[in-house]
Amino acid sequence: MRGDTVDSNSSRIAQALAAYGFDIACKVTVGDDLELLEKELARLASAYPAVIVNGGLGPTGDDLTAELLARLCSVELVENQQALAHLQQWCERRRFELNESNRKQAWLPAGAGVLANPVGSAVGFWVEHSGCLVLATPGVPSELEAMLSGDVPSVLQQKFPVAEARYIRRLKLFGVGESTLQQHFNDNRGLWPPAVELGFRAGAPLLEIKLEVQDRAQLQARAEAEALLREWFGDYIIGEDDTSLAEVVVQALRNKRQKLTLAESCTGGGIAAQLTSVPGASTVFECGVVSYANHIKQSLLGVDATLLAQHGAVSEEVAIAMASGALACSGADYAIAVTGIAGPGGGTDDKPVGTVWIAWGRAANLHTAHFCYASSRKMFQTMVPAIALDLLRRELAGNANATVPNYFRLRRN
Amino acid sequence: MRGDTVDSNSSRIAQALAAYGFDIACKVTVGDDLELLEKELARLASAYPAVIVNGGLGPTGDDLTAELLARLCSVELVENQQALAHLQQWCERRRFELNESNRKQAWLPAGAGVLANPVGSAVGFWVEHSGCLVLATPGVPSELEAMLSGDVPSVLQQKFPVAEARYIRRLKLFGVGESTLQQHFNDNRGLWPPAVELGFRAGAPLLEIKLEVQDRAQLQARAEAEALLREWFGDYIIGEDDTSLAEVVVQALRNKRQKLTLAESCTGGGIAAQLTSVPGASTVFECGVVSYANHIKQSLLGVDATLLAQHGAVSEEVAIAMASGALACSGADYAIAVTGIAGPGGGTDDKPVGTVWIAWGRAANLHTAHFCYASSRKMFQTMVPAIALDLLRRELAGNANATVPNYFRLRRN
Repeated sequence: MRGDTVDSNSSRIAQALAAYGFDIACKVTVGDDLELLEKELARLASAYPAVIVNGGLGPTGDDLTAELLARLCSVELVENQQALAHLQQWCERRRFELNESNRKQAWLPAGAGVLANPVGSAVGFWVEHSGCLVLATPGVPSELEAMLSGDVPSVLQQKFPVAEARYIRRLKLFGVGESTLQQHFNDNRGLWPPAVELGFRAGAPLLEIKLEVQDRAQLQARAEAEALLREWFGDYIIGEDDTSLAEVVVQALRNKRQKLTLAESCTGGGIAAQLTSVPGASTVFECGVVSYANHIKQSLLGVDATLLAQHGAVSEEVAIAMASGALACSGADYAIAVTGIAGPGGGTDDKPVGTVWIAWGRAANLHTAHFCYASSRKMFQTMVPAIALDLLRRELAGNANATVPNYFRLRRN
Repeated sequence: MRGDTVDSNSSRIAQALAAYGFDIACKVTVGDDLELLEKELARLASAYPAVIVNGGLGPTGDDLTAELLARLCSVELVENQQALAHLQQWCERRRFELNESNRKQAWLPAGAGVLANPVGSAVGFWVEHSGCLVLATPGVPSELEAMLSGDVPSVLQQKFPVAEARYIRRLKLFGVGESTLQQHFNDNRGLWPPAVELGFRAGAPLLEIKLEVQDRAQLQARAEAEALLREWFGDYIIGEDDTSLAEVVVQALRNKRQKLTLAESCTGGGIAAQLTSVPGASTVFECGVVSYANHIKQSLLGVDATLLAQHGAVSEEVAIAMASGALACSGADYAIAVTGIAGPGGGTDDKPVGTVWIAWGRAANLHTAHFCYASSRKMFQTMVPAIALDLLRRELAGNANATVPNYFRLRRN
């Protein structure tokens, strides 16, 4: 309920519970004035069958959720034995002593049921108030997520065995913008099954498309809509639900039993970090070099000094030499090499900030592409690794002639 | 106003406007039912002097903000010439044609004022309804941020020249948890200046502490509170406002005109990616090696095969050898090397998931530390790079004998 801690937790909750057919009607954030909180919570509890409170379960003085729900239900705070046992175990596992601040987390409204937290100290709990189920969940995202795939849906399902079902299919796309998609839909509205509601959620780097129908009988229409979408934008669809470009690339390499190496300049290890965020990445990724300086491009990757002098570090020739060098020193099958100018400094008239050369492929068959992604350093470092991974994804998916898509209608000259 | 796009934007808005003395009283999220949205917005507009609507300015059919605000004010949507000119320029700069979907973004409520968007296509705007100022801002975070340091505060200040001031000081800490801090405050409550309100905001990897007073006359008390805090937890305070560990390390290296190299195994390029997210990182960081596989540790970093065989890749000896190897091949002054088991697989009884060895320092004076950060892969890859950067931060700040702090009371044997 507190503005500065809930942040993206509401979408975590909405997504997790949508899978169980629970829909979030509204989200309310108020400050940490207890009276205001109680008033708002009472209003929500009278208007909705269930309310999820997020945050405020921690050990500090401004963590007020237990007190708030005790006031709402007009009960005392009591030391909950199940919660206390959890805290003791948690401290024991980390081999430190339970202090008074930790111990505060075991004080819950009398009669509250505990929601187990498998990954943190904060205990979740639930109470009932005037027929409304109120669940208190932790604000730390990893703890919330663990609870959202554990006790939260269990308790909800126990109380609401026949939640109204929604049939949502989520697809992730890369390289095409909302306006291009919308324009295409507008131009082909007649082909679209009317029962299927279409939603967009723009993100960086991926765009999510939602196809939603209201009951089981319309699932066929949803499948038709998906088939249309794949016909129109199949190349841009990278997968379903919460998949990432790195996940798709790691999986494709695993399937082919091939290994990848990286030579990163302007992306500074960003591609390596994304790849290695995927569990099991070590089976396909053994080595990456972040070669920010020219002399490193020479010494570690064997890029020829004359190439650097003739064409500059941000050039097709150097991108290819970096990829070849990474392949040679790693023994991998595929390489991605990226060299460019992330900004804000370093641009010239000839090579403005945002200029980037990417080389990718196998030693015997390296391809290149050139873009100008003129944006902030942060956006450059979000989008350029994604473009590089997507180029390899397309190659691994059988785009043999390495056609470079018109990513976001980006300028390429 | 839409649940799945606002996410952390509300905290962006709150933080940006706090600097101008504007306080966010409450945050409301509703679905995309126009009637519900209108009803809720009318309620907010009658209760508050200003409302900020976020998202729904895009080119797609589910972007409804302009229509919503036109309904609220009972005016028509008209093609706003200033907005249209912006869209035309934006397309021109990217060298593609304005399509109908883009063009939709120029249709704003009659009489609306434009809020310039320096970085994206979506035009922001403001209207007045029953004396309430309603501002419509873009959902894409980078575009929102640009507007929050531009037209949004300007328009607010024009309408509310004497916003009530708040005097907030934000400090960022690493390595100490909320419960430890709270316990310390509880035990020393008598020393704390009562005018100073203390707030926490737990994040990964940093913890934010807020010191807030209500008027200028209390700034002295706030300074005293900060001095107390620095006395108690000075070593853990890495900086102010939105600073990051990578920023502090890059700045310290710049001040000393020293260079850093990295040899990353389990962190997979995560440290390199954080360092290179800092503009100007290239002056202190030239080279990093992501050596996921043992044979790469040998070939690129020169780690002795016998060391690997005798002690295993996750060992103090190998961490030191990786750091030495990175220093040798890069010519840098300082190194950080990390080797560990991020999980979920790869753990043994002897070296469970979460085990990590970190070596850092200069060639002639390398230090090591050993932790067991048993958590998810994601948390491991968030916290271990932060620990590694913090160890170097402390060394650069003059922690000459390389005492390893009791980070988060983590297990170390």
